Amino acid sequence: MANITKKVSWSSRADESGATGEGTPLLNGSEQPRHSRQIGRLSTVDLEEEITSEEDSLRGRPKEIPHNEKLLSLKFESLDYDNIENQLFLEEERRMSYMGFRCLEISRWVVCGLIGFLTGLIACFIDIAVEELAGFKYQVVKENIEKFTEVGGLSISLILWAVLNSAIVMIGAIIVAFFEPIAAGSGIPQIKCYLNGVKIPRVVRLKTLVVKVCGVICSVVGGLAVGKEGPMIHSGAVVAAGVSQGRSTSLKRDFKIFEYFRRDTEKRDFVSAGAAAGVSAAFGAPVGGVLFSLEEGASFWNQMLTWRIFFASMISTFTLNFFLSIYHNKTGDLSSPGLINFGRFESDSVAYNLYEIPLFIAMGAIGGLLGALFNVLNYWLTIFRIRYVHRPCLQVMEAMLVAAVTATVSFTMIYFSNDCQPLGPEHTEEYPLQLFCADGEYNSMATAFFNTPERSVRSLFHNQPDTYNPLTLGLFTLTYFFLACWTYGLAVSAGVFIPSLLIGAAWGRLFGRLLAAITSSGSIWADPGKYALIGAAAQLGGIVRMTLSLTVIMVEATGNVTYGLPIMLVLMTAKIVGDYFVEGLYDIHIKLQSVPFLHWEAPATSHWLTAREVMSSPVTCLNRIEKVGTIVDTLSNTSTNHNGFPVVVQVTGSDEPAKLCGLILRSQLIVLLKHKVFVELARSRLTQRKLQLKDFRDAYPRFPPIQSIHVSQDERECMMDLTEFMNATPYTVPQETSLPRVFKLFRALGLRHLVVVDDENRVVGLVTRKDLARYHLGKHGLEELQLAQT
Amino acid sequence: MANITKKVSWSSRADESGATGEGTPLLNGSEQPRHSRQIGRLSTVDLEEEITSEEDSLRGRPKEIPHNEKLLSLKFESLDYDNIENQLFLEEERRMSYMGFRCLEISRWVVCGLIGFLTGLIACFIDIAVEELAGFKYQVVKENIEKFTEVGGLSISLILWAVLNSAIVMIGAIIVAFFEPIAAGSGIPQIKCYLNGVKIPRVVRLKTLVVKVCGVICSVVGGLAVGKEGPMIHSGAVVAAGVSQGRSTSLKRDFKIFEYFRRDTEKRDFVSAGAAAGVSAAFGAPVGGVLFSLEEGASFWNQMLTWRIFFASMISTFTLNFFLSIYHNKTGDLSSPGLINFGRFESDSVAYNLYEIPLFIAMGAIGGLLGALFNVLNYWLTIFRIRYVHRPCLQVMEAMLVAAVTATVSFTMIYFSNDCQPLGPEHTEEYPLQLFCADGEYNSMATAFFNTPERSVRSLFHNQPDTYNPLTLGLFTLTYFFLACWTYGLAVSAGVFIPSLLIGAAWGRLFGRLLAAITSSGSIWADPGKYALIGAAAQLGGIVRMTLSLTVIMVEATGNVTYGLPIMLVLMTAKIVGDYFVEGLYDIHIKLQSVPFLHWEAPATSHWLTAREVMSSPVTCLNRIEKVGTIVDTLSNTSTNHNGFPVVVQVTGSDEPAKLCGLILRSQLIVLLKHKVFVELARSRLTQRKLQLKDFRDAYPRFPPIQSIHVSQDERECMMDLTEFMNATPYTVPQETSLPRVFKLFRALGLRHLVVVDDENRVVGLVTRKDLARYHLGKHGLEELQLAQT
Repeated sequence: MANITKKVSWSSRADESGATGEGTPLLNGSEQPRHSRQIGRLSTVDLEEEITSEEDSLRGRPKEIPHNEKLLSLKFESLDYDNIENQLFLEEERRMSYMGFRCLEISRWVVCGLIGFLTGLIACFIDIAVEELAGFKYQVVKENIEKFTEVGGLSISLILWAVLNSAIVMIGAIIVAFFEPIAAGSGIPQIKCYLNGVKIPRVVRLKTLVVKVCGVICSVVGGLAVGKEGPMIHSGAVVAAGVSQGRSTSLKRDFKIFEYFRRDTEKRDFVSAGAAAGVSAAFGAPVGGVLFSLEEGASFWNQMLTWRIFFASMISTFTLNFFLSIYHNKTGDLSSPGLINFGRFESDSVAYNLYEIPLFIAMGAIGGLLGALFNVLNYWLTIFRIRYVHRPCLQVMEAMLVAAVTATVSFTMIYFSNDCQPLGPEHTEEYPLQLFCADGEYNSMATAFFNTPERSVRSLFHNQPDTYNPLTLGLFTLTYFFLACWTYGLAVSAGVFIPSLLIGAAWGRLFGRLLAAITSSGSIWADPGKYALIGAAAQLGGIVRMTLSLTVIMVEATGNVTYGLPIMLVLMTAKIVGDYFVEGLYDIHIKLQSVPFLHWEAPATSHWLTAREVMSSPVTCLNRIEKVGTIVDTLSNTSTNHNGFPVVVQVTGSDEPAKLCGLILRSQLIVLLKHKVFVELARSRLTQRKLQLKDFRDAYPRFPPIQSIHVSQDERECMMDLTEFMNATPYTVPQETSLPRVFKLFRALGLRHLVVVDDENRVVGLVTRKDLARYHLGKHGLEELQLAQT
Repeated sequence: MANITKKVSWSSRADESGATGEGTPLLNGSEQPRHSRQIGRLSTVDLEEEITSEEDSLRGRPKEIPHNEKLLSLKFESLDYDNIENQLFLEEERRMSYMGFRCLEISRWVVCGLIGFLTGLIACFIDIAVEELAGFKYQVVKENIEKFTEVGGLSISLILWAVLNSAIVMIGAIIVAFFEPIAAGSGIPQIKCYLNGVKIPRVVRLKTLVVKVCGVICSVVGGLAVGKEGPMIHSGAVVAAGVSQGRSTSLKRDFKIFEYFRRDTEKRDFVSAGAAAGVSAAFGAPVGGVLFSLEEGASFWNQMLTWRIFFASMISTFTLNFFLSIYHNKTGDLSSPGLINFGRFESDSVAYNLYEIPLFIAMGAIGGLLGALFNVLNYWLTIFRIRYVHRPCLQVMEAMLVAAVTATVSFTMIYFSNDCQPLGPEHTEEYPLQLFCADGEYNSMATAFFNTPERSVRSLFHNQPDTYNPLTLGLFTLTYFFLACWTYGLAVSAGVFIPSLLIGAAWGRLFGRLLAAITSSGSIWADPGKYALIGAAAQLGGIVRMTLSLTVIMVEATGNVTYGLPIMLVLMTAKIVGDYFVEGLYDIHIKLQSVPFLHWEAPATSHWLTAREVMSSPVTCLNRIEKVGTIVDTLSNTSTNHNGFPVVVQVTGSDEPAKLCGLILRSQLIVLLKHKVFVELARSRLTQRKLQLKDFRDAYPRFPPIQSIHVSQDERECMMDLTEFMNATPYTVPQETSLPRVFKLFRALGLRHLVVVDDENRVVGLVTRKDLARYHLGKHGLEELQLAQT
């Protein structure tokens, strides 16, 4: 078990020096990577930086886990959802009048409005860019195909298509792989971690947003089996993190507004709102967005926060809707609330009957099975990628290969398909391909493949019952399943929602057609669109394993609540069945990063453990008035690299643990050192101005490393008084507290450090996120136990 | 301020000895009753029982607040959402295998399924009973009216109608006023308090459920301006509390199942599910139900819990739907998911345009204003009722009076209305009254009044644009507004949702008609049904002030998400406008009870306060090994009546505060005394069996009073060892902790007692719910400040 300690970068890209580790076995055939227990035990307080690799090399295991060395993306710090209530903070709060708090509250609403607006605008930009570029691409290819269908030599069309796709995808892959690897994928696992309290480096930066937006346009236009919806959630989160801070560190602009919000507590609230706004814009589902944020992220439910999130979601969908209506020359017609439009489900055509419910449940089970298969395949693929495809150039090449293969497979499928359908007068196909069909007919396989995935989903939901023949549907499901599975995890920005919906819609429609064939008389069974919808829900549920929020998203996207109950049943079934085999796709990817992710509850059977066994100890404590040299040495100690230090009252000449009187963070100490807040200097009263909260906020969130701060030998002899800056009332637990109890306190309050004290209030240990997260897998080997805690 | 200390029973019914206080001034003209600060300060640990009145009489204020004396309904104990992790509990948890936890989880799902099923059945029963009885009544009255329309003497019909209504309402009022006063009203404020952590006596008993169900049938059939939806939420909660405990103390049956769930933590989770199932059955809104439970109740959001709640909601609406489909002879047609059916809103007819949004917002503002007016009037009325109408017989008479007046007003309105409409072939009116209209026509005022409120709402939403003339709508709005306002708070079981919807639908429709009249050309403006819906949302939002959950409920009830955005905007506006004037109706009624209700956050400007100032002290502590006599005396001390006692390590001959080593509850001590768990007896090993968790569970939740336990003089000299039974790791805070920090810990973890310790871990005080709740009004006189915290 010790040997499977490994880390993976979010982007499936290894570090720059990754070459050293090429070809070395990573997982030793173990299917389930685990959080490193040894490392966790060795860390004393809160290991954040190079400890992983350093400790590893100490233990003589570096050759087995070379990817860890100097991998910067591994620095998973924690967010602190607990306010640092030091004297400065309390003084500021006390100075603030009631009107001041009202203004703050109003600015929170303003920020949420802005988040919604900007997220909606970004969604709008992506949508229009994709529409225009994809339209242009399909037009070119279509004309080429039509030209060569008559004269022969369709292979030239194939090459054109494949080259076009590869070229576009190449651009997307290059910007992601070389400039901002964190922008790869849908970004949902990252946002999930962020909301859980794990700080993923660079995840909410402006650069990430730019790369993400350009990347997703390239991936979708490049014809990959991807959607543009997932990345919207990440984009919304970045917008939120940017707007709420009133500045951009990347652009080096500080607008001097919203300074109060420059701390983890506030920022995380806004990021929740941004994620919700993203979902809202992606699916036109404002309520679904709120539920997504809550289901995936929040732990403490606050009514006012929820309303602000809801407000951001509303504004986001409204903005998108409004600008798209202008783009579509139907100003004021608010009929496209999201990026994906499921089309109109009329109440009559979608009516379902009681005896169909078992069928729906069966479809949910199929979705769960297929979803589990998808996840397992993708898991293996990701392992493979980690081992062999970690250089950026390799990643770009893989993405190009996938793009070319996708085009080739699509073309082959279309070429050999003889599913010709009459082209009705009110056909909805944007680019009907005639190919070898008779005049006035079109190739229906081309409708599914030769289209943006969003359009394909819509046509599977709404086209006439006999549009696709069963063979077309079956082949499409099969090929798209593997294409989508291969695509997810590439170094491109792209989401898995739409491919999942598409796969599910295809087999759902197939299911419906088969049913109709079996029960030739049943008129109500005749509508395969209904089964396509249920299939889509089942497949998506089987892959991502959300229930409540996904139900609402689907209902809002279809615009019809009639299907609420069946969709719920299907999603529940898919989740139960899928969870039996493997976790959800996002959780798999989170686990592959060894992220210290805290689930909702401690493992059920963990009452055996107490804080004493869980905590890290001994703890590096600081005295209330401490020598600067000691502080600098403590912070510089790369072998520990602690982030939080209990402050204790001085014990003269005693080796006993000292009494707790506060807690101070590395970031605070850094600011104090930078401003040279030393007792001796304070006495001179000349060089010294009183340090304010503003100084801490200006440094947030990118506090300089200790190495960048110069402390002279004389200064090392000075003293620092921490009283004013430490959090004087940190949360504590006694040593005998059981793990579930510690976990509950830690999780409910979103803590970063929890001090363990004995019955004399002396510090005996410190519990951090890693101490708790370590247990939900490490303790029980059973796969089932894991599922119970998800 | 000290003089306005007053308490009100939930049922608006005073105590049996209430006569002594008749006519005494209660509120001294102050508009805002406050939580009694003095009483709070005097209490040392956790006052629960007669302390209020006792303290009052000590301070010479009994003549001013006579309602407090011996008023049993005032005993607002707290629920303990924190597990008592004593040795017994930990041993049980540690003994339990992983499979054991799985089984528990499965039984939680089973319980939730049962809750949903039973709640659905109850809803179904209420619906059918109301339909049948009201149908019968309207048929009788209609025939009578038709008879006398021709021959003259309609006053006889009026009398018949009024007498019928009064008689039916009398039955409903009698069972409520005499048998179970807690069943009065909608029950939503009570459930809100329960979920907040306040134990309202008798609120989740079987008897309450029976009275509630019968009461609501009588009120609706009796023609009062009430709905049957609100009470469903209460009913669902009672079902949940009953089913989850696997026994009924009222029926003295114990099924010996679900014993693990016999504690506040688990029970409260199930009650959330029950409330959600109730909403779901009432409005056919499973997602809305979940959100209602979360918005009104929960604080710590747990994913698994949410899914279970969702499951209960689904089952509930499905059960109702299924049985109603059988009742309507359309088995398998799942088209009536809730008690109220808004009818079909077709996407075409409900399309709205961008320029209508300002209109919707204006309607939201009107709704907020009217809602605030409604609440203020009802507030004054409630005060009046508390002072003058507190005897059960008076309450019954008032209810009968309201019933008679309602009938009379309705009759008068119908009589003087000359709004005749042609009776089309596909008319939806169940009981069209011709009265003085020409043949083939019917009186449209009668459609609004001579109908169950649910039907009236539907006809206002969907009838042809010219069905009602503006005068009819205006008069209807006016009269129904005052009738509904008068009715809410009567000693009958009834909800305020439907009357609010009805008032709103009426003025909304009026608004739409006026708009159509002004802009004669506009075709889209022509559909007053749309404006009726928006008006209904605005009015309901203005009265109850929910946003997110209400939006979802309305969307699910209309079955169309097109209106999601307008409804959100309207509800937000209504809330903002309404909150400017007065709180929501439920909050007003909660405040009138002086319930120690904890809002989401501590008051913004409360950083001045620290635990030291907030806490109660000195604290009555017990030693780890304590004399039985001391314990009995402590528990018997009626002047303090504490519920939680910090356990400390014995300090020999010292007057210093002792070191904390645990916390034990009154209920636990009672069980220990009852079983005579004394150290001396344990030594004899003969009379003693080891006390188990089961003994505590059997006594839950109605622990006997200390007076019922006989302790002999010899036994008083025995010792009790509390080590095994106390919670050895209670949460603590240092004295300097700011109030918001204390509040956050307390609220997030749902605590009942929070021990305040000094830096040597010695007990210096105890914070309970009342210590915190006291501050959200007492500190700031400003009304605005209150709103910010709601």
